[in-house]
Amino acid sequence: MVILEKIILLLQYQTSKIMRVNIHQFNYKTKDYEHNTSQIEEALKESNEDVLNIFSELALCGSPLFDSALYSDIYKETSLCGERLLQGKKSFIVGTIAKGEENTRYNALVFVNKGEVMGLSTKRNLGRFDENFSIGNGIETIKYEGKNLAFGFVEDFENFVKRKVQTDVVILCSNQLFDKDDKDENIKTLSFYARQMKTKIIYVNRVGGEGCFIFSGSSFVMNERGEICEKLSMFEQGNIFVDLDNIKAKAFASLCYEEKIFRAGVLGLRDYFHKNNINKAVIGLSGGVDSAVAVVLGAEALGKENITGVLMPSKYSSEHSVNDAKKSAENLGIKYITITIEDIFEASLKTMQPIFEGTEPNTAEENLQARARCMIIMAICNKIGAAMLNTSNKSESAVGYGTLYGDDSGAISVLGDLYKTDVYKLARWINKDKEIIPQNSIDKAPSAELRFDQKDSDSLPEYDILDKVLVEYIDNKTDFSQLIKKGYEEKLVMRILRLIKINEWKRHQEAPALRYSKTCFTTDYKQPIS
Amino acid sequence: MVILEKIILLLQYQTSKIMRVNIHQFNYKTKDYEHNTSQIEEALKESNEDVLNIFSELALCGSPLFDSALYSDIYKETSLCGERLLQGKKSFIVGTIAKGEENTRYNALVFVNKGEVMGLSTKRNLGRFDENFSIGNGIETIKYEGKNLAFGFVEDFENFVKRKVQTDVVILCSNQLFDKDDKDENIKTLSFYARQMKTKIIYVNRVGGEGCFIFSGSSFVMNERGEICEKLSMFEQGNIFVDLDNIKAKAFASLCYEEKIFRAGVLGLRDYFHKNNINKAVIGLSGGVDSAVAVVLGAEALGKENITGVLMPSKYSSEHSVNDAKKSAENLGIKYITITIEDIFEASLKTMQPIFEGTEPNTAEENLQARARCMIIMAICNKIGAAMLNTSNKSESAVGYGTLYGDDSGAISVLGDLYKTDVYKLARWINKDKEIIPQNSIDKAPSAELRFDQKDSDSLPEYDILDKVLVEYIDNKTDFSQLIKKGYEEKLVMRILRLIKINEWKRHQEAPALRYSKTCFTTDYKQPIS
Repeated sequence: MVILEKIILLLQYQTSKIMRVNIHQFNYKTKDYEHNTSQIEEALKESNEDVLNIFSELALCGSPLFDSALYSDIYKETSLCGERLLQGKKSFIVGTIAKGEENTRYNALVFVNKGEVMGLSTKRNLGRFDENFSIGNGIETIKYEGKNLAFGFVEDFENFVKRKVQTDVVILCSNQLFDKDDKDENIKTLSFYARQMKTKIIYVNRVGGEGCFIFSGSSFVMNERGEICEKLSMFEQGNIFVDLDNIKAKAFASLCYEEKIFRAGVLGLRDYFHKNNINKAVIGLSGGVDSAVAVVLGAEALGKENITGVLMPSKYSSEHSVNDAKKSAENLGIKYITITIEDIFEASLKTMQPIFEGTEPNTAEENLQARARCMIIMAICNKIGAAMLNTSNKSESAVGYGTLYGDDSGAISVLGDLYKTDVYKLARWINKDKEIIPQNSIDKAPSAELRFDQKDSDSLPEYDILDKVLVEYIDNKTDFSQLIKKGYEEKLVMRILRLIKINEWKRHQEAPALRYSKTCFTTDYKQPIS
Repeated sequence: MVILEKIILLLQYQTSKIMRVNIHQFNYKTKDYEHNTSQIEEALKESNEDVLNIFSELALCGSPLFDSALYSDIYKETSLCGERLLQGKKSFIVGTIAKGEENTRYNALVFVNKGEVMGLSTKRNLGRFDENFSIGNGIETIKYEGKNLAFGFVEDFENFVKRKVQTDVVILCSNQLFDKDDKDENIKTLSFYARQMKTKIIYVNRVGGEGCFIFSGSSFVMNERGEICEKLSMFEQGNIFVDLDNIKAKAFASLCYEEKIFRAGVLGLRDYFHKNNINKAVIGLSGGVDSAVAVVLGAEALGKENITGVLMPSKYSSEHSVNDAKKSAENLGIKYITITIEDIFEASLKTMQPIFEGTEPNTAEENLQARARCMIIMAICNKIGAAMLNTSNKSESAVGYGTLYGDDSGAISVLGDLYKTDVYKLARWINKDKEIIPQNSIDKAPSAELRFDQKDSDSLPEYDILDKVLVEYIDNKTDFSQLIKKGYEEKLVMRILRLIKINEWKRHQEAPALRYSKTCFTTDYKQPIS
């Protein structure tokens, strides 16, 4: 048996040629077939014949497709793109849509060797964006350049491992979303299996924002010992050429928590705007830490010249809030304008007088101010063809501390998936070298300034304790009784959980938030409305 | 063989007793365990020992659960409710959550015979609300009162049919959503299988609104010839006692298209408000057909005394629009108030003067008016503890003809899943006996009245042609090239499809719409944002 194995090994060695791959981590555009195909075509043109070029999942049509996957057009267009790519007679793996019997459609990867289609892997373990695809066959094996190759989707890999097929290289394509709390789970899992299967693994992910979703990149090549040998950056397009027979483990610096969020936010914002053909943003600057952080991300994403800060003080605004807001704009070098809300607020109080007369002031009067501010920002946006940046955070959104059609509005929410404590972390990180966020915005007690001397802590628990409960409840799914067991005060927990529950309907209309986690309110986490 | 069959039939006849069932079509409340359990407990108390009481899917905890199914509390609570029900020593089938190995949870039906658990069916074909449940075993069979019974979820029935098990009665529980375009598909399918399997079928559905979702009821009993013998009403709670050995085919009147929508809307609205502990609504009355229809549904759902109409004319409002709006309120007998937007509009123009100066009037000025109206309605709502009814329709929403944070806002949209042509149909049906909707609101050309002499048709194709294209594209998934083949004008189709695409981001923030169809924008139909 030992001799037989040696002969087989020898044969494999003799028949196997050098295997070169080029991994392409691109930023595709959903349903922009021309953009996606020409990007791939360019890459293939520059490639040698003996290089296997690898592109990610659904590269031809982009993703997420949602209900557009239900239309025939998309299959016709994608097929045409695929045929166009075959003309170049190069070798590649690319994500596309495959047609099955009886109008079934698969999320597929096609393997092309020098212009000839050699294999197809159809996704079996369908994910959140695959709702309109049928269940496919999973990972496929193929002989290429004398090597035993397996290729398919990363979601199908665990099933493949169980089949105990011997491979030299496993190629896994993906459209994996950024998750700020991810502890390299994907790398750890693949590393474990690389060692177990004694195989090299190539992982190819796309990069870029699509709507609220951010794809993180980080494509890599791993050796049989599960060590990373080559890696592409997070959040950046790029490619990497690898001679697979000659790879060595390397160390790669990883981004810190804050920088990951920052760069994800910048990429997400930029793509949200540019893929929707909008270049300009308008943002309300209150002097608080949220708007100060949001404007930094906005300026980085769209360019300083494309973002306008609007200061909208009222009689309840403190002097420091105006100064902090100005400083925030000046530190960043963006243009800002000051527009008082007093005239609109006074006119609205006068208008509402028949209704308000004889009643105690309540949220009605407070919300008028927030809505006047929304009105002003949207008027600027409509006039100059810009979109409004929302500045709310996830803590506020969780407990409904915001005004619908007021500060809850905006074309996109920059911080809506970040708890207040994360916003502070981000602010300090942004300020690591010099003061960009006014230090006072970080240090002072948060306030909505909708009445005299108002503090967030008048209505809410302090953010450090609130956020702990929110993370436990929303992210860790720790229920009421478990929270009490962990030592949180019963009354406090009841109050917070009640606020989360009664504000679900409100969250349905808040500005869509860039998704940084698995529990983003506008894309993931849902509670019953009633 | 013939003799053998006869002997078997004879034996079956001798061993089978009379089987009596009581079908309960209840309106459960999500996570209101006490409400659900006591309702069931009451029903069981009144039942004889030899009656099998049937309740629908997830009756103990309600549905949809969304992410609340991820918390342990819900399983503990539901188990306690289940144990409570066993005490009564009655016989019943009820929907609950079952715990499996390794923390798996199933959407389950438990079969209880005189207080003893006799069987469990766990859902295999998981649906849109089952995302946090594991795949179960499907329909189960059981011997009960000498009869061969099968029980389980309607979604699992087709799989069961393939197993060719002989049954006397099949009991199918469900949480099926209302769909205005449904042509009794469910009854037709079950009727076909009843004949094929020569079995009686009992179908039990829940009723009521949960958030935007409306469950329609229509539980029924079908004989072996696939004929309906007993049936509960759509949209109403109720129960029906059936002696299964003595059922006869009957004719049941069905509601017309308009009445189905009307009653679904009333039920949906009422439950949306009451299950959220809100009793009062405020609605803007423009004199147009949309607000005139929406207010009729609102008044029917909440009571005339609980709805306030607000007329908010501007200098662009025609005299007829004010008169029609008044007439709409007066015909209905609801209170209404008139609040001019002129002061807020003038103040906002003055405020925006530094920005607007020297520019051409555009949507910025128009939207200020819509937003001033939203501000006023929300101020009333905040002051009196009411919620705002949105009055937009699906045609407008599809092409983005509305103002975000203006007329697109509201706690719930009554007509957001109805195309304009459906709104007209509903208006005519409401007026069938006497004029409730002012005839002029139905007859006149629709207008947003945000500038002088504005008509919807200035910006949009006429609604009859627009709606045809929308139904083809959104509901039938007819793509661009197929639309052209069907004879629609290329330029027109391109324009409409472009509008649908570029307004996707806007639809994410529109008031959540009561769901009447499979393509409701806020619950079902999604396009990529970019």
